[in-house]
Amino acid sequence: MTIAQDDQRQPAAAAVLDPEELRRMDAYWRACNYLCAGMIYLRDNPLLKEPLRPEHIKNRLLGHWGSDPGQTFTWVHLNRVIRKYDLDMIYISGPGHGAPAVISNCYLEGGYSEIYPEKSQDETGMLGLFRAFSFPGQLGSHCTPEVPGSIHEGGELGYSVSHAFGAAFDNPGLIVSVVVGDGEAETGPLATSWHSNKFLNPIRDGAVLPILHLNGYKIANPTLLARIEPEELEYLFKGYGWTPYVVEGDDPPLMHEQMAAALESCLRDIRAIQREARNTGEPGRPRWPMIILRSPKGWTGPKQVDGHKVEDFWRSHQVPVSDAQTNPEHLRVVEQWLRSYRPEELFDRRGTLLAELRELAPGGERRMSANPHANGGRLRKPLDLPDFRRYAVPVDSPATTKASPTETLGRYLCDVMRQNMQNFRLFSPDENASNRLQDVYRASPKTWLARIKPEDADGTQIAPDGRVMEMLSEHTLEGWLEGYILTGRHGLFNTYEAFVHIIDSMYNQHAKWLEKSKLETRWRLPVSSLNILISSVVWRQDHNGFTHQDPGFLDLVSNKSAEITRIYLPPDANCLLSVADHCLRSTDYVNVIVADKQPHLAYLDMQDAIVHCAKGIGIWPWVGNDAGCEPDVVMASAGDILTQEALAAVAILREHLPDLKIRYVNVVDLYRLQPDTEHPHGLSDADFDSLFTKDKPVIFNFHGYPWLIHKFTYRRTNHSNIHVRGYKEKGNIDTPLELAIQNQVDRYNLAIDVINRVPRLQDSAAHLKEWLKRQIIESVAYAYSEGMDRPEIRDWQWPQFPGSIDAQGQD
Amino acid sequence: MTIAQDDQRQPAAAAVLDPEELRRMDAYWRACNYLCAGMIYLRDNPLLKEPLRPEHIKNRLLGHWGSDPGQTFTWVHLNRVIRKYDLDMIYISGPGHGAPAVISNCYLEGGYSEIYPEKSQDETGMLGLFRAFSFPGQLGSHCTPEVPGSIHEGGELGYSVSHAFGAAFDNPGLIVSVVVGDGEAETGPLATSWHSNKFLNPIRDGAVLPILHLNGYKIANPTLLARIEPEELEYLFKGYGWTPYVVEGDDPPLMHEQMAAALESCLRDIRAIQREARNTGEPGRPRWPMIILRSPKGWTGPKQVDGHKVEDFWRSHQVPVSDAQTNPEHLRVVEQWLRSYRPEELFDRRGTLLAELRELAPGGERRMSANPHANGGRLRKPLDLPDFRRYAVPVDSPATTKASPTETLGRYLCDVMRQNMQNFRLFSPDENASNRLQDVYRASPKTWLARIKPEDADGTQIAPDGRVMEMLSEHTLEGWLEGYILTGRHGLFNTYEAFVHIIDSMYNQHAKWLEKSKLETRWRLPVSSLNILISSVVWRQDHNGFTHQDPGFLDLVSNKSAEITRIYLPPDANCLLSVADHCLRSTDYVNVIVADKQPHLAYLDMQDAIVHCAKGIGIWPWVGNDAGCEPDVVMASAGDILTQEALAAVAILREHLPDLKIRYVNVVDLYRLQPDTEHPHGLSDADFDSLFTKDKPVIFNFHGYPWLIHKFTYRRTNHSNIHVRGYKEKGNIDTPLELAIQNQVDRYNLAIDVINRVPRLQDSAAHLKEWLKRQIIESVAYAYSEGMDRPEIRDWQWPQFPGSIDAQGQD
Repeated sequence: MTIAQDDQRQPAAAAVLDPEELRRMDAYWRACNYLCAGMIYLRDNPLLKEPLRPEHIKNRLLGHWGSDPGQTFTWVHLNRVIRKYDLDMIYISGPGHGAPAVISNCYLEGGYSEIYPEKSQDETGMLGLFRAFSFPGQLGSHCTPEVPGSIHEGGELGYSVSHAFGAAFDNPGLIVSVVVGDGEAETGPLATSWHSNKFLNPIRDGAVLPILHLNGYKIANPTLLARIEPEELEYLFKGYGWTPYVVEGDDPPLMHEQMAAALESCLRDIRAIQREARNTGEPGRPRWPMIILRSPKGWTGPKQVDGHKVEDFWRSHQVPVSDAQTNPEHLRVVEQWLRSYRPEELFDRRGTLLAELRELAPGGERRMSANPHANGGRLRKPLDLPDFRRYAVPVDSPATTKASPTETLGRYLCDVMRQNMQNFRLFSPDENASNRLQDVYRASPKTWLARIKPEDADGTQIAPDGRVMEMLSEHTLEGWLEGYILTGRHGLFNTYEAFVHIIDSMYNQHAKWLEKSKLETRWRLPVSSLNILISSVVWRQDHNGFTHQDPGFLDLVSNKSAEITRIYLPPDANCLLSVADHCLRSTDYVNVIVADKQPHLAYLDMQDAIVHCAKGIGIWPWVGNDAGCEPDVVMASAGDILTQEALAAVAILREHLPDLKIRYVNVVDLYRLQPDTEHPHGLSDADFDSLFTKDKPVIFNFHGYPWLIHKFTYRRTNHSNIHVRGYKEKGNIDTPLELAIQNQVDRYNLAIDVINRVPRLQDSAAHLKEWLKRQIIESVAYAYSEGMDRPEIRDWQWPQFPGSIDAQGQD
Repeated sequence: MTIAQDDQRQPAAAAVLDPEELRRMDAYWRACNYLCAGMIYLRDNPLLKEPLRPEHIKNRLLGHWGSDPGQTFTWVHLNRVIRKYDLDMIYISGPGHGAPAVISNCYLEGGYSEIYPEKSQDETGMLGLFRAFSFPGQLGSHCTPEVPGSIHEGGELGYSVSHAFGAAFDNPGLIVSVVVGDGEAETGPLATSWHSNKFLNPIRDGAVLPILHLNGYKIANPTLLARIEPEELEYLFKGYGWTPYVVEGDDPPLMHEQMAAALESCLRDIRAIQREARNTGEPGRPRWPMIILRSPKGWTGPKQVDGHKVEDFWRSHQVPVSDAQTNPEHLRVVEQWLRSYRPEELFDRRGTLLAELRELAPGGERRMSANPHANGGRLRKPLDLPDFRRYAVPVDSPATTKASPTETLGRYLCDVMRQNMQNFRLFSPDENASNRLQDVYRASPKTWLARIKPEDADGTQIAPDGRVMEMLSEHTLEGWLEGYILTGRHGLFNTYEAFVHIIDSMYNQHAKWLEKSKLETRWRLPVSSLNILISSVVWRQDHNGFTHQDPGFLDLVSNKSAEITRIYLPPDANCLLSVADHCLRSTDYVNVIVADKQPHLAYLDMQDAIVHCAKGIGIWPWVGNDAGCEPDVVMASAGDILTQEALAAVAILREHLPDLKIRYVNVVDLYRLQPDTEHPHGLSDADFDSLFTKDKPVIFNFHGYPWLIHKFTYRRTNHSNIHVRGYKEKGNIDTPLELAIQNQVDRYNLAIDVINRVPRLQDSAAHLKEWLKRQIIESVAYAYSEGMDRPEIRDWQWPQFPGSIDAQGQD
């Protein structure tokens, strides 16, 4: 079937609902809307048993009414089909501040009272709910982690559809309904996430049912999608590959009929798509159904206030009637509005929803407010992980052979994938191979439901049942991964370092969700950590140039709670394996791993790597010559290239200044640097001092912007002696060598730093300093003398000083 | 005309081109493609006068071929219509690494040699160009600032269309052609930026002509838009509100005919739209034309290499044939490919393009490589600014009256808008009114070309000729503003503080562009600063909750070059006016201003505000009691709420501990804190010490995350005594009071901090400390005793201590 043959689908308002069902559904919907309005307005008289008086009205009116009635309407209709077809369904609320719609349904279904017993299903509980809404420390106006049934807060807009798809992947029995606000729909992330339908396999995955809620207005503006022509809108969604059903109007009975019919059509389509695909084994590329729900903003609320249009206008976005305490006319409008729902026909005298209405909601875990998929920790199974030691790079002698850290990781991830074909996925914006993780394709190709051409057989690695997720949208990938994790599965996102900033704000929001859900909602069980692998790092983005050089994501990461943030900079391939294994086992963290794709020196054999990564920070005794004594200077580093240059600097100094006592400290777990009072991984001051001394100069060669090390160490005893090198925004179309030299993280500059900071060397090593300066000039000249070549940092190996502690020795 | 009536438009391949014209255009195109390939491969023998030998091949092959031939094809065809219709047109290259396509055309048009004379239009210059491409310190593989005619680097993907619209606004005679890569088209920012057509007024603005370049592949994957059905693609773009013309194929002569015809159709449509709108004064909502160019990736390159498909496949994304130095067969393929362009028919013996081809390019400023719009500083006119003093809030006595900083600013911006109706715009995601800048609508409503309803007349403030830009896409707004600035105009973007992180990565990229264009390309003249106003700040996002609390953008800003970054935290309304005036006059910076929208205490009258903002940091002598002596303690603050609490703390201490000598320092210009060796605004150590002392405790109350102050001050003499309070990720649905207390930025905690840090108070003020602790508890209790109210920070005024220096006195 082509699109052209597929006419605009407006479901016939056939009598899907019998009159009694319609009456009861409408009553249930009125109960929801009554609660929504009550949350915004009432601090007393919750059932309106008395005439509404000013003292019943909250002192400060807060909350968002506009999106609520359309969402409650949708929820009530979803409940009908959940019961009718025994559906396993969750609900994602895209519009920003629509929490009252979700909370009211959670409360009416009983799920809310089960978790928060004080919000009982009676007059007292209802009043408590009203009072708690938007009250300090209590209920937010978004679907925060405290809201049962939610995996999507919606405080920041744009990620509802990608979250929905993440939840649906590998959940063949699940339908994820997602209400998309028409404001949200204007964001970039949302606009491209509609294309997620080309990555959903009807055999293996569940279904996503979007309901685009065109209520027409944002805070103070119309929405674009509500003000283009209906035909254009239809084209747009057919162009996105969906089959839209339109539900439009404002008359409740007619709308109920339309919505019921539309949902029947959608479920019929979903079942047909899944049955066909699952029976034939051919996924095809389904044009999944969706609903365009065009209903008035603030539907059923006051039509006009003070002569201004309110219902079906932006004025109903938040609180449609202000000053109800002080303005008698406004109080009258509010009372009339609240009474229009006829609460006395919905709740009994005790304040409990009537039994004939209660039975409209599904029971137990079929309730969208209690579906276990929305509390992913309940379903999460740990990964079946291969022994990462099996993928170790052999290291007979440290810093003598090279291996690509991410390529090594790729071999491990291939088997992680193979052993977890139901609940692990890898996510990257068209960069898995570029980041050298291509071995993963041996376990599974990339997901691709769009057209496949014969030539793709030659290396494109795409298939409808692939498990590697690649689309050129960091937002969509991150959203998919978050949805996947929050519903109990596992994954890893990898990207070029500079462009991880594209999802800065998504990181912020996920970190905030995680902190609250981990620390404040005990009923939410731990979910897998969000694992972000940053590769194609700044120091090797020489030929891609300045735009590709930005290691600042770590600064952002470290602004969030110590309870959930972890940063790892494994110095080599074996350390990366050890770190990755740890991260994939962990829960409720954001793990950020920085590891490059180019071949880098390997320092530690697997056993040493495990020990080193477990400690997170440590002296490498084979590097320095400070055994048994206080050193003259400490050289430290975090990051792969930075470690190579730090070691090379130590080697130069040991060769030329054999009497200088140097200690070398490598940092894998960056938070080790923070005080233990600031971060659970932090070292005590005593431990920190024992590594970095209390008064000796420390030269720290850091992967990122240098001040992050100061941020982590400014309270340390020896902070005033810590001198940090790192990226300081000096770059261009460069070579690794010049990039290092310009930012002074190269071996020669580091050696000069040491000389400058050890007082007794000021005079005695003046000659060496001059030599080092010449080396800088000559190494650039040497590189260029190679003609049109692009000079790498010179190949180099650890020189194995006679008399050193054995490289494999203990520290 | 409705969409449905508007059939798929495939321009007839009528003979738009006469055979001779076609022959010459094809030759010009071959010359471009030859140069593109030469840039990737050749370090000698640039005209292939000799057989190709290994030593002619670069040692390291770098660059991206895939997108080049489609882009050169487009450029050559745009040249034809520029000449034919004397068009004023610029070119934006969306696909990431397509610089060779642009550089080759710049070079052939002569614009390149005019700026870089050593790249002369002869064999020597050509060889220099080839060698410089992707060579360290020289030509990048994106359209960096060094590339004439470019306002869009494309290192990070997704912003080409929004940049194009920004360039077109208020440029009625300009056509902005923008080639959109089909990889780029998958990003969120690009996906929503197609809707920009609802914000372009055909009377007042120019035209944007998108060419969606479907070459089918990204680095290693097919692209979505190339693998959906052609009908779907057509629907998608009609749904986005465009009129797509399709050009599809691989046979050059036929493609030339098609492209010429399509461009004729597009220009006919553009002219018709503009003529109709400008004649009638009715802008309508045009369905602007666009081109879908479906051509093979790596078109005209090697079809196969080693049995693998290369042309029309992802294998031609970067370097289509590797190892040409060492693999004789590969060398042969490269030579055959290069010779297929018949360079001897294109260039004379000297290496200059034949005259009959040269004349195909437009001349002078009609060349897209030399169009002044792409070097916006050449066209930029300073704003005609009203005297900001006229908008001052009266301050008779400091800290006794309140004013909303942004509302005050709004009155000023209204007149800025009125006096600059051709070259100033305000950008915000549906938040100008929410951020209290609504007075601007008195000068001009919001731009809105989509449908307008009668009820909009009641306060919606939208009109087709509005100049305030609101769409719920921070990406699109920021992209518009960047395009607007880079073509020589002025603007200001404002947003909720937490959500400015959505454009973190765009900030990074613009900052990098600005640094390079300011410091390294002297021929680019200064453009207006990128002005970002952050409002609805963390400290007043109490009821919106945790998701809306993130002041970390400043951390990100400060990672970029000191040459172009500026951060201002005006403490009150008058200071904001002074800062805004300064920023709107400035060029080549990113100015980030943090100012809240709620009523805040006003501290300085206009004259004092001007003096204070000019200094950027200073002692407020009416606050402390340290006149003429070294203080016991320094209290400092940056930010509005933070200043109020700091002052309140000083007042408490002065009342209870009159013998304690306190100095108060206010910081407006945050970079004053950095050493002058780090930032041009930095204070010398001597000046810093004179403010903050060398050894007295400093309590610093900061708007953002506290460590930013440490980052800026860690090298200062007195750093170890600087104790910073700020947001430390403690928040919820809160009140301003509790938010302040939880993060310990409130007056009582600050007073306790002082007591804890002044040794002689340890015992003597123990009683006061207990009292302060009680105040914290009681002020929360007091707030809650107000019932359902949402406690604000208690109202407070500066108590005017007897004997103080007069508030308006000099400091």
